[in-house]
Amino acid sequence: MPRNKQFDEQKALDAAMRTFWEKGYEGTSLQDLESATGLARTSIYNAYGNKRKLFEKAIIRYRNTVLHDLVAKLNNASTAREGIRALMQGIVDMHYDSRTPGGCLVVLSILESEQHDDSSSALVEEMIGQMKKAIHKRLLDARRNGDLPADLDVNGVSSSITAAVAGMMVMGKAGFPRSTLQGVIRTTLNLLES
Amino acid sequence: MPRNKQFDEQKALDAAMRTFWEKGYEGTSLQDLESATGLARTSIYNAYGNKRKLFEKAIIRYRNTVLHDLVAKLNNASTAREGIRALMQGIVDMHYDSRTPGGCLVVLSILESEQHDDSSSALVEEMIGQMKKAIHKRLLDARRNGDLPADLDVNGVSSSITAAVAGMMVMGKAGFPRSTLQGVIRTTLNLLES
Repeated sequence: MPRNKQFDEQKALDAAMRTFWEKGYEGTSLQDLESATGLARTSIYNAYGNKRKLFEKAIIRYRNTVLHDLVAKLNNASTAREGIRALMQGIVDMHYDSRTPGGCLVVLSILESEQHDDSSSALVEEMIGQMKKAIHKRLLDARRNGDLPADLDVNGVSSSITAAVAGMMVMGKAGFPRSTLQGVIRTTLNLLES
Repeated sequence: MPRNKQFDEQKALDAAMRTFWEKGYEGTSLQDLESATGLARTSIYNAYGNKRKLFEKAIIRYRNTVLHDLVAKLNNASTAREGIRALMQGIVDMHYDSRTPGGCLVVLSILESEQHDDSSSALVEEMIGQMKKAIHKRLLDARRNGDLPADLDVNGVSSSITAAVAGMMVMGKAGFPRSTLQGVIRTTLNLLES
């Protein structure tokens, strides 16, 4: 496969990802996908199979770019507290970045579960599960290293941080001001104290 | 208007509310609404105008029943802490109640914002705003009465509880076990301690 074709497929996939992220699965028409990718309907079918297969490829692309970068913020900070702060701040910054659609493709897709088949449902559920596991592992390692209190309820706190992250995306879409989401970050960090 | 007609319209509205709650706005077809309400398409148009008007009536019905009952749990408990616990427990119990669709109609509708017009978007955004205001007021009154610590960050904590509530609905839809959501409740209550 020539490099050029690979490059175009990547760009088209990014464009499809952003369209699903903005409009949701059901709300995205083939016409929307044609406009976004610059490909004709027949080329989309030839390259990706159908709308559902393209959605699955788009959500995997989202995991490998957007979610990968967020988990890197969590893991690359020097302390667990700074890692959680960087993860949550990254999510808020992404929501208000005019270059990306607001909210989160995974959260949107979970809520739209009635529109998905078993395969794409399992995929989006696995992604929020992986986010929770990454938070849980970061806190557990930090508790072992003495970076967090020995009596920290790692199961409860990692569940709460996952809920806060998903809830912030809902609140962002509902038009709450940035200061409200900063308040969620500030307060959630208090959960790491004991 | 005879009582009988009023009764039927209420029942039909409840059925429409549950259908939107289960399938989302875009995912609900007129055929679905016909099956759920037992009304023919022309009767639906005559009674409610169009699908969007019916959706708006359904979401107002949701506010006046489901959200009203949850806010009553928040306000009727003897302490703010018990009120927050009762609100969050009510949301988890509702999600796992086999007699209701999972998740929350308001959260689903916010995520589906691209599918709504300004009027219905404003309506669902106002509803999550009212939930946050109810939590904020309960905490503020409790801080004034000495039921919560005088230095409690009421703005931050009420934002965090709102995020936790919305996030729990996302996690419930993503298939996390009930024990994970109980962990969110247990940990979130720690935010009321200082």
